[in-house]
Amino acid sequence: MAIVLGLPKGSLQESTFALFKRAGFNVSCSSRSYIPSIDDDEIKCRLLRPQEMSRYVELGLLDAGICGYDWVYENGSDVEEICELNYSKATSNPVRWVLAVPNDSKIKTVKDLQGKRISTEAIGLTKRYLKKHGVKADVEFSWGATEVKAPELVDAIVDLTETGSSLRANNLRIVDTILTSTTRFIANKKSWKNSAKRAKLEQLKMLLTGALEAQRRVLLKCNAPEKTLDKIVKVMPALHAPTVNRLHGGDWYAVESVVEERMVRDLIPRLTKNGATGIIELPLNKIIF
Amino acid sequence: MAIVLGLPKGSLQESTFALFKRAGFNVSCSSRSYIPSIDDDEIKCRLLRPQEMSRYVELGLLDAGICGYDWVYENGSDVEEICELNYSKATSNPVRWVLAVPNDSKIKTVKDLQGKRISTEAIGLTKRYLKKHGVKADVEFSWGATEVKAPELVDAIVDLTETGSSLRANNLRIVDTILTSTTRFIANKKSWKNSAKRAKLEQLKMLLTGALEAQRRVLLKCNAPEKTLDKIVKVMPALHAPTVNRLHGGDWYAVESVVEERMVRDLIPRLTKNGATGIIELPLNKIIF
Amino acid sequence: MAIVLGLPKGSLQESTFALFKRAGFNVSCSSRSYIPSIDDDEIKCRLLRPQEMSRYVELGLLDAGICGYDWVYENGSDVEEICELNYSKATSNPVRWVLAVPNDSKIKTVKDLQGKRISTEAIGLTKRYLKKHGVKADVEFSWGATEVKAPELVDAIVDLTETGSSLRANNLRIVDTILTSTTRFIANKKSWKNSAKRAKLEQLKMLLTGALEAQRRVLLKCNAPEKTLDKIVKVMPALHAPTVNRLHGGDWYAVESVVEERMVRDLIPRLTKNGATGIIELPLNKIIF
Amino acid sequence: MAIVLGLPKGSLQESTFALFKRAGFNVSCSSRSYIPSIDDDEIKCRLLRPQEMSRYVELGLLDAGICGYDWVYENGSDVEEICELNYSKATSNPVRWVLAVPNDSKIKTVKDLQGKRISTEAIGLTKRYLKKHGVKADVEFSWGATEVKAPELVDAIVDLTETGSSLRANNLRIVDTILTSTTRFIANKKSWKNSAKRAKLEQLKMLLTGALEAQRRVLLKCNAPEKTLDKIVKVMPALHAPTVNRLHGGDWYAVESVVEERMVRDLIPRLTKNGATGIIELPLNKIIF
Amino acid sequence: MAIVLGLPKGSLQESTFALFKRAGFNVSCSSRSYIPSIDDDEIKCRLLRPQEMSRYVELGLLDAGICGYDWVYENGSDVEEICELNYSKATSNPVRWVLAVPNDSKIKTVKDLQGKRISTEAIGLTKRYLKKHGVKADVEFSWGATEVKAPELVDAIVDLTETGSSLRANNLRIVDTILTSTTRFIANKKSWKNSAKRAKLEQLKMLLTGALEAQRRVLLKCNAPEKTLDKIVKVMPALHAPTVNRLHGGDWYAVESVVEERMVRDLIPRLTKNGATGIIELPLNKIIF
Amino acid sequence: MAIVLGLPKGSLQESTFALFKRAGFNVSCSSRSYIPSIDDDEIKCRLLRPQEMSRYVELGLLDAGICGYDWVYENGSDVEEICELNYSKATSNPVRWVLAVPNDSKIKTVKDLQGKRISTEAIGLTKRYLKKHGVKADVEFSWGATEVKAPELVDAIVDLTETGSSLRANNLRIVDTILTSTTRFIANKKSWKNSAKRAKLEQLKMLLTGALEAQRRVLLKCNAPEKTLDKIVKVMPALHAPTVNRLHGGDWYAVESVVEERMVRDLIPRLTKNGATGIIELPLNKIIF
Repeated sequence: MAIVLGLPKGSLQESTFALFKRAGFNVSCSSRSYIPSIDDDEIKCRLLRPQEMSRYVELGLLDAGICGYDWVYENGSDVEEICELNYSKATSNPVRWVLAVPNDSKIKTVKDLQGKRISTEAIGLTKRYLKKHGVKADVEFSWGATEVKAPELVDAIVDLTETGSSLRANNLRIVDTILTSTTRFIANKKSWKNSAKRAKLEQLKMLLTGALEAQRRVLLKCNAPEKTLDKIVKVMPALHAPTVNRLHGGDWYAVESVVEERMVRDLIPRLTKNGATGIIELPLNKIIF
Repeated sequence: MAIVLGLPKGSLQESTFALFKRAGFNVSCSSRSYIPSIDDDEIKCRLLRPQEMSRYVELGLLDAGICGYDWVYENGSDVEEICELNYSKATSNPVRWVLAVPNDSKIKTVKDLQGKRISTEAIGLTKRYLKKHGVKADVEFSWGATEVKAPELVDAIVDLTETGSSLRANNLRIVDTILTSTTRFIANKKSWKNSAKRAKLEQLKMLLTGALEAQRRVLLKCNAPEKTLDKIVKVMPALHAPTVNRLHGGDWYAVESVVEERMVRDLIPRLTKNGATGIIELPLNKIIF
Repeated sequence: MAIVLGLPKGSLQESTFALFKRAGFNVSCSSRSYIPSIDDDEIKCRLLRPQEMSRYVELGLLDAGICGYDWVYENGSDVEEICELNYSKATSNPVRWVLAVPNDSKIKTVKDLQGKRISTEAIGLTKRYLKKHGVKADVEFSWGATEVKAPELVDAIVDLTETGSSLRANNLRIVDTILTSTTRFIANKKSWKNSAKRAKLEQLKMLLTGALEAQRRVLLKCNAPEKTLDKIVKVMPALHAPTVNRLHGGDWYAVESVVEERMVRDLIPRLTKNGATGIIELPLNKIIF
Repeated sequence: MAIVLGLPKGSLQESTFALFKRAGFNVSCSSRSYIPSIDDDEIKCRLLRPQEMSRYVELGLLDAGICGYDWVYENGSDVEEICELNYSKATSNPVRWVLAVPNDSKIKTVKDLQGKRISTEAIGLTKRYLKKHGVKADVEFSWGATEVKAPELVDAIVDLTETGSSLRANNLRIVDTILTSTTRFIANKKSWKNSAKRAKLEQLKMLLTGALEAQRRVLLKCNAPEKTLDKIVKVMPALHAPTVNRLHGGDWYAVESVVEERMVRDLIPRLTKNGATGIIELPLNKIIF
Repeated sequence: MAIVLGLPKGSLQESTFALFKRAGFNVSCSSRSYIPSIDDDEIKCRLLRPQEMSRYVELGLLDAGICGYDWVYENGSDVEEICELNYSKATSNPVRWVLAVPNDSKIKTVKDLQGKRISTEAIGLTKRYLKKHGVKADVEFSWGATEVKAPELVDAIVDLTETGSSLRANNLRIVDTILTSTTRFIANKKSWKNSAKRAKLEQLKMLLTGALEAQRRVLLKCNAPEKTLDKIVKVMPALHAPTVNRLHGGDWYAVESVVEERMVRDLIPRLTKNGATGIIELPLNKIIF
Repeated sequence: MAIVLGLPKGSLQESTFALFKRAGFNVSCSSRSYIPSIDDDEIKCRLLRPQEMSRYVELGLLDAGICGYDWVYENGSDVEEICELNYSKATSNPVRWVLAVPNDSKIKTVKDLQGKRISTEAIGLTKRYLKKHGVKADVEFSWGATEVKAPELVDAIVDLTETGSSLRANNLRIVDTILTSTTRFIANKKSWKNSAKRAKLEQLKMLLTGALEAQRRVLLKCNAPEKTLDKIVKVMPALHAPTVNRLHGGDWYAVESVVEERMVRDLIPRLTKNGATGIIELPLNKIIF
């Protein structure tokens, strides 16, 4: 019995396939197909727009899927969230849905939207936000390029932003952040209660998060003389104690530890100061603590 | 006073710019901008998704626009239709919105859709169609790739097709054609009543249709001897009498006529049979009858 | 009843489709298909490698085809040659099959090939050539890149060349030209005798050669004063007498003639010297004399 | 005896080759070569950076060349200017060398440059400009991307601009225009006095300007009834009287005239108002008045 | 003394260069050259079509080469097979030469080919196959696109297939598999007996297979508590006993083993169940057991 | 306090960003910007042409920069050289500035240049070289494509070459090598004396050279039986003693060492001969000895 797994079509597709590759699964898809092949008989893959993923997971047409939290919320889908998967096309920052207006607009807060026209791709999200603030406004569905519509065609927009650069380039000012969203691994609630399916989903969770962790970490190895061994061990980051190993025929020890890649540049000078030699850094495929 | 003119962003953009070029207007746009420049002080251009065009023409935010009739209908917009503009990205055939189901589906007519789930990008069009036939079904908005959703995720789709090849490739069968659509030049009703704006819109209509006509026609010239002149003139297509001109110093006549390009291949053999010589065919930029 | 027409797959395909377009036929083909569509119900097209064209025309599986004379000769096919079609991918020069050897080879004439090894894509052509000269040598089929095989792997090659530049770049010297070849329009002998098919093939011949002629010619028009009219008419090239037309209300004449494009640069200075004014040059689509 | 002609390498190369093509000369060049071939035995071509063109024309290593006036001026070359050739890569506007500073700079006029540092690719031009205004400043040669150097690395720049958009994008303000420049056809002074070479250069001038003119003009033809013939003839632009021709068997006249392409859009409505019918517009290759 | 080594031009070229890179040899080749450079003075490389490789290895013009077994068989070459190299452009599956016919053909077995016409790029292979089955048929050399020739031009084809998808797309049915083929490293028989050349070829074999093995394997490391060490060691795959190492100051052991990459996804859950912690997976360049 | 660091725009840019990535710094830059972002608050990056780098480092507008030694020399800049960074776009060979002349030129030594014309992008370098040899010649600035100017426009050139292939392709002969150059990490002299800035620059030096070293090296691991352990340890390259480690429960040792990648192909056969088993090679990110 195989699980049916929805993978996101579009900007996340390439990085999703790469993540599965590092996790140990070869997923491939010809450019015009929506049925990727995967080298695991217990999984069947489907490509879907992230906007529609949670809808079909909720209906049970997919056992599980990967998509942004924003679209789970927009669709109001009742699904099980297995875990966060912290990756995206460009950076590891979460994306935000923001309310934005032209730089020189008189709109300063959500309250000023009363009676105005707003363009957005997330109708449900926007209407719920306005309702929460007791504001009535005209919310129009945007077929794309939302950020160029204000002020000519609408008064405000609700749009997705990662770095804010596209908004700045269009002379827009952020009034409020409505939702912060990251990628999620979600399951149909019934599939999650099925023990065979759950075991497969748990395995996927372990391998996917293991591959994501490995991308941000490296294996650092060095040789330490006996007299400064304790100092060197202390310098090594603390999450997991370094592996220490006495070398054959001498007073030296091999010390190795998995560390965050971005800390290495400060760690290496401190290790050399404490007498460490032969420092090498190796890339990792996966980490399971 | 300039008119504000909406041009279609997307698959029609390039051919629209080319049409304006042949009509005598240079329109250009950097790849990331939505405000094309045009070398006519009486026109301001805006790029918009065709799906949204009629909405903003109706509101008067645009004086006129170019888009498919399907989206005017989908949006139920109250606008003035100036003329049809018979061009599209690939062929000059109209596009169709069709109801399609998997080849082996039991659905044979619209009546069989009762209680089923349908995916489409044209929610309004589909609901009006179902209502007309007294059928209740679940109509879902599709974010793209509609043709791959049946039968796994939905029972039927309503989608756009030009040649039917994408439907065939996905093993879908057409049950009914809901709407046939071509490109239209539309205006805001108030702008159309404003005499200055109307004069500009009429000029645009004359030049755009003149350029479209010229694409399908050529100028055919030949020399005809006096004795078969009448026959040759009769062979030439009838829409507009050929221009006949007696040549200097002899019994020959120059005959020229604007003819449809696709008729030339049959016309030439008939002309040569009747004694015409020196047949040449020239390309045209514009025709105004 | 439609004729089946073979069009050349490969380097000639794009220019062949363009030639048909100018002749009045729209031929198109998706990148992976071998069955092009054409907007004439009396023609069915097939794409084939030029090397195989004459073989299937001879067998009658195709009524006609377009390919180089070299492959008709290589295959020894018994077909009807309708006409030459003087076009190719780069220039209008004929291609040549040449015998070539390394610059410093001792081979000076075909006689020196006795007992040597020769690589070529045209086995039949090469063997017939050797036989004619009474030379025995080992002729090997080359799967491509023939020009890099001498002197390391073979003693000589027989290869296709248009400008000789690829041979020079590989330090090869031409010993002899074996065959000069241009593109031909060929027919199955039985199809050629069938009057309905022949009429269609004759129409194609007229339109294809008319389009080819038009590419090399232009329409030149000028106004000539009465006193130098005769001189101006004489200056205009002689193939076809210029069309002369007395203008309304004056002593001026309009003179126009179809001339070779490459002669215009010398013609214009001579026309202006003889008093011609308002010289204009127009492009042509087709010419049938 | 052939003339040696320098053609501009770089942004003008493609449009220069296209101009020669329309003028009747086929120029082609493999991507890595600097010696284009041309189908005229009396011309030998060389590709050169426009910056160096006038230097080698002055020395007589080239008989003639095509380059911007700016580099003739920068190099201070003593050459014969045959004519202006009004074309460029994007628009037909002349380019300008401007003095620019950061938007918030205190520099308001050239006088404020005293003691400052200026970056430019045109050292000679800039120094002559400063000298004329009695200003002493440090002028540095820029190896490219001059517009990003102020204010971090220099106080002001002297750079080329066509539309000003690159300057605006880098927050720079134009203080002064130093030189306005268009493309020129220049000759070595000695070659210009040689009668054989001069004849060839005059022919080139006639054909190149004829092709340039033809790009901005079209041939407009219409049929006019006798009673409004005079009005229609008057409406037609005046540079050159329209060609009028009485048609065979009736009271109609054929009127044709070469007009500017950008005037057609206003001309057509006026012609139809005056009773003209069958208006057609044809493209031109060349015009020699 | 250097060996001359033939590398396959075409679809295998890029993956062959990548394999050599992982094996420790930098091979590079400009796009138009057939003589790659390699950073080993004892090897000279030549690029050749795989179809011709075995012919020149047999003649001794190459000491060794890499190509598919199918072409060794097609050419009937008498060469030494050093080893299989299990890589190809897409998958690691062997390719197959199959006899295929249109889906609706009456041909069911090889016997039904009597008197039919067959198209193939492997004439020798096909003729030997027919002879073995006592069938006489007309075998034609195909210049490409063999799979589109049936049924219009021929009755059956013999063609190469990896996944069968191209055959299915052309509505062809496989009747029989004639030959299964993988990539081989082959040597000239005389070169193989030369001890110096053989040593070099053995070194290449060791490094190439070592690099191929490494692509399918990873280094898996974990920490194991003393009490479950035995279980953990047993879980680790058996080809080569895991390396076990007592850690400094405690009852923990470091366990590491080279395992197949595709087994890791099942191995990790079993390791964690048995108490292993700090599991990391590292990529490998080479493995020599 | 952050340091301002100049990175080379152009052919070295991509490999420089990749080097920083391996060193632990993410540098990125949109295609039109000259201000790359870097994930280290203590560094601000600027992209500059290598030709201008040393000029702005000397002036103190940049604290440090990366560029070729040739341009430090050409500009005669007074800067601190921190270290060599041995990388370039294609190979790790140094580039050379050479004096070259046409193959058939009479110029044999620098002395023969007296009174000749020389084209070069490095005016200063060339003039200093001529002065040193007491030769007077006309040195012209070249705007590019220097190698095609001789012999038509100049007598000799001074140009950059890595492999000499471009010179050979243009039929040029090298007369003398004027300067050999590699990439350098340079600092402003005042910044180098500032202790905070120097610490940052030293850290960069350590990490950049560590990443460069790692590219040329790998980690080699094997298992050695007790009796040949000494031999195996001796075979391992000597720069740094191998790490030796007694395995649990047996007479085997794990031996690992960082070795040069290009030596592995000879090392592995020697290790296996001495009884080593389970040899694996792992890639490295960084090495600090």
